[in-house]
Amino acid sequence: MNLAMVRYLLGWMLGVEAAFLLLPMLTALVYGESTGFAYLFAALICLFFALLLSMRKPKNTRFYAREGFVTVALCWIVLALTGALPLHFSGEIPFYLDAVFETISGFTTTGATILGNVEALSHASLLWRSLTHWLGGMGVLVFILAILPLAGGHTIYLMRAESPGPAVSKLSPHLRDTAMILYGIYIGLTALEIVLLAIGGMPLFDSVNVALSTAGTGGFGMWNDSIAHYNSYYLQGVISVFMILFGVNFSLYFLMLTRKWKQALKSEELRLYLGVIALSTLLIGFNVRASFDNIFQSLHHALFQVASIITTTGFATADFDLWPAFSKAILVLLMFIGACAGSTGGGIKCSRILLMLKSVKKELHYLIHPRSIRINQMDNHRIAHEIVRSINVFLIAYLLIFISSFLLLSLNGEDMVTNFTAVAATLNNVGPGLVGVGPTCNFGFFPPISKLVLMFDMLAGRLELFPMLLLFTPATWRKNR
Amino acid sequence: MNLAMVRYLLGWMLGVEAAFLLLPMLTALVYGESTGFAYLFAALICLFFALLLSMRKPKNTRFYAREGFVTVALCWIVLALTGALPLHFSGEIPFYLDAVFETISGFTTTGATILGNVEALSHASLLWRSLTHWLGGMGVLVFILAILPLAGGHTIYLMRAESPGPAVSKLSPHLRDTAMILYGIYIGLTALEIVLLAIGGMPLFDSVNVALSTAGTGGFGMWNDSIAHYNSYYLQGVISVFMILFGVNFSLYFLMLTRKWKQALKSEELRLYLGVIALSTLLIGFNVRASFDNIFQSLHHALFQVASIITTTGFATADFDLWPAFSKAILVLLMFIGACAGSTGGGIKCSRILLMLKSVKKELHYLIHPRSIRINQMDNHRIAHEIVRSINVFLIAYLLIFISSFLLLSLNGEDMVTNFTAVAATLNNVGPGLVGVGPTCNFGFFPPISKLVLMFDMLAGRLELFPMLLLFTPATWRKNR
Repeated sequence: MNLAMVRYLLGWMLGVEAAFLLLPMLTALVYGESTGFAYLFAALICLFFALLLSMRKPKNTRFYAREGFVTVALCWIVLALTGALPLHFSGEIPFYLDAVFETISGFTTTGATILGNVEALSHASLLWRSLTHWLGGMGVLVFILAILPLAGGHTIYLMRAESPGPAVSKLSPHLRDTAMILYGIYIGLTALEIVLLAIGGMPLFDSVNVALSTAGTGGFGMWNDSIAHYNSYYLQGVISVFMILFGVNFSLYFLMLTRKWKQALKSEELRLYLGVIALSTLLIGFNVRASFDNIFQSLHHALFQVASIITTTGFATADFDLWPAFSKAILVLLMFIGACAGSTGGGIKCSRILLMLKSVKKELHYLIHPRSIRINQMDNHRIAHEIVRSINVFLIAYLLIFISSFLLLSLNGEDMVTNFTAVAATLNNVGPGLVGVGPTCNFGFFPPISKLVLMFDMLAGRLELFPMLLLFTPATWRKNR
Repeated sequence: MNLAMVRYLLGWMLGVEAAFLLLPMLTALVYGESTGFAYLFAALICLFFALLLSMRKPKNTRFYAREGFVTVALCWIVLALTGALPLHFSGEIPFYLDAVFETISGFTTTGATILGNVEALSHASLLWRSLTHWLGGMGVLVFILAILPLAGGHTIYLMRAESPGPAVSKLSPHLRDTAMILYGIYIGLTALEIVLLAIGGMPLFDSVNVALSTAGTGGFGMWNDSIAHYNSYYLQGVISVFMILFGVNFSLYFLMLTRKWKQALKSEELRLYLGVIALSTLLIGFNVRASFDNIFQSLHHALFQVASIITTTGFATADFDLWPAFSKAILVLLMFIGACAGSTGGGIKCSRILLMLKSVKKELHYLIHPRSIRINQMDNHRIAHEIVRSINVFLIAYLLIFISSFLLLSLNGEDMVTNFTAVAATLNNVGPGLVGVGPTCNFGFFPPISKLVLMFDMLAGRLELFPMLLLFTPATWRKNR
């Protein structure tokens, strides 16, 4: 284990965090809020440790899968522990554990809050919550890869461990360029959303926050009634579209930018993703039509909720906990499907679902024609055996974490749907669930042990299980044989 | 597709069913019940078609995987359609669809009933329900293999398609001997239970019924309060033990009979199975202790319910729907785990769970040591790659069927826990679920479309998915390329 590299990257991560903490501090200055001091103080703490850890550059920059997983897991935990400081210092979330829950929920782009009244927060803290979504969405280590010249080492392992999906698409032979392209597209799309929201009459501060939160597919809102607050078809429609856009694999945008439109639009994952959105919207829109004045209204709200849940954003324009059983069942299913690989969304990911469906089809074919040979393919590319295997193992590990969390939450005695959807909403980084954790409720009532379980689930979900599992595997820390 | 062989075996199956239908007819004679005519009439119908279909022996006895799956799927559907006739003829279940539901629930050893008052049934029909459990538990085609000299063809495919678990253990080089050994052990254990129950003071007719139902891990009872009716620690204890015994892989009993005790007791699947039972009993016993007079009573009922659910029998001595959330969560989890492969129990099966756990461990090891090579092993035997792959595909297909059924049931508007546990209880062949389908409720209230879904799930669960999936795959019926 190259611990020097882990330390060095941890230092850089804290430096990036210190820089980002200055943004809410400046916001506090503008709005004349005293919470600015909490952000300044937190930034100074991060800066101190950043300098301490990254002062000495490691001689050996060698870096393997194991280091990648451990670095990513540790970075994200430290990110949450330090990112919670200003919320705690300012007294807006008095209990530190709650502040950590809120921050993990932010960085992992879950959007599950422990706050009953988000409207009481200062402007600085509202912006910080949105910023955690934005930075966590594309990934803090991907950000570091984009700004830090890390030659020599196999830093692809860092990206693999942090990026969602079964495989990382290299957009350029140089990893740094790939990271820069990804962040470039990300910044461009976020800026576009801010402009479109502001044009529609949303206040600029709201536009920035909503756009940052949409971009990371996070879901923290500025108002207690989430996006229902903006009672405008245009604004809600823009957010619907951008949620869907941020759930698309970013490498497809790169293909579009390089004029490979055909290839981008032929993506099997994209087709599955859009197909599921269209079908779910129609089914739910039809199922809930009685609750709305006309079918267009019900389709509008159905699309918003479908986009919000499948991209694992978690915004709401309606209390879907009151919707009929069939609509709720579809929404719960969408939580698990999730967005596309290589997007900022969570869940199991459409590409994994696609490959799972293909493997069932292949097995049925094999049972009928035992001597035939079929190859796993996606987008006319052969899928390596290792990826298929790792998807299968992912599914099993996913179910194991899900079941263990569900059992631990049950100790608290809440009803089964609350416990089930609380785990589903955190492990898939969605945010709201049903009943006790529905869109109008919050996660504040859980006892500390349940909160710890859900915090683990949020991190495991965002980092796609293995970094968190390896962190707690003793063999990871043993010397190489 | 060798349709002549499918026809021939279907004929034999109907012959076996006709013979078994005579047993309730004789019971009706003894008790002077008019329902006997319904059973006689049904037996004659089965006999007629049996003779018609099996008169001409096929010249070509060649038989492959495809034929195996199709034969098993078709046999089981016809078994249910004809087995429902006497219940319908006698007027005890007036609607034919309901009678078919009850019969499928019987043969698949589910034990989910549509009857609100089973005590109103005639002795003949009570015995018939228990007999369906017994015959379905070990398998009707395995029974035919034991009595029918089918030389030449690859009849192992029949056994593979009907026997639960990822692989079939050949106990003897001759398949017929294997089938005979299995049924021999099965009859012996059933007889032993009848004797032990009768010694404990249970009426003989009850003993026979309860033993047949336990043996098949079915769960149909003769009383509305299931096994709580027999208010005796001894009787309930005997049933607990025999439920656990019938959930063990029968090939282990063969090892014991041939004095290979050590090998039998070293079975990793057996250890996992017993370990899960012990741990769950302790956790639940402790969790529900407030509902009982003392800890021994609560452990007694915890063991009974754990044994009943993990073996997917479905008997009850207490209304576990009233138990705390943690106990209910464990019981729902046990529904999915299920019994051992090669037993009469349902669920995913302990050996599959074991191999899934091993594959996660292997992947974590591989991530830490990418160049290492590890082989899948169980009981010191190498597990073929095909089996690991087919378990993964099984899990995916299982989840697909589960989710589709859950969505279809949600159309009816029941609450989420009812729908979820109704699917879990039928797809795993357990019987009772929670809330609307809890131990004191029944499945009668579901509309016909939901019943059809649950009937499919029971068959898919008992036959381990692929026969039912292949039956509805168009490619199965196409000519070989």
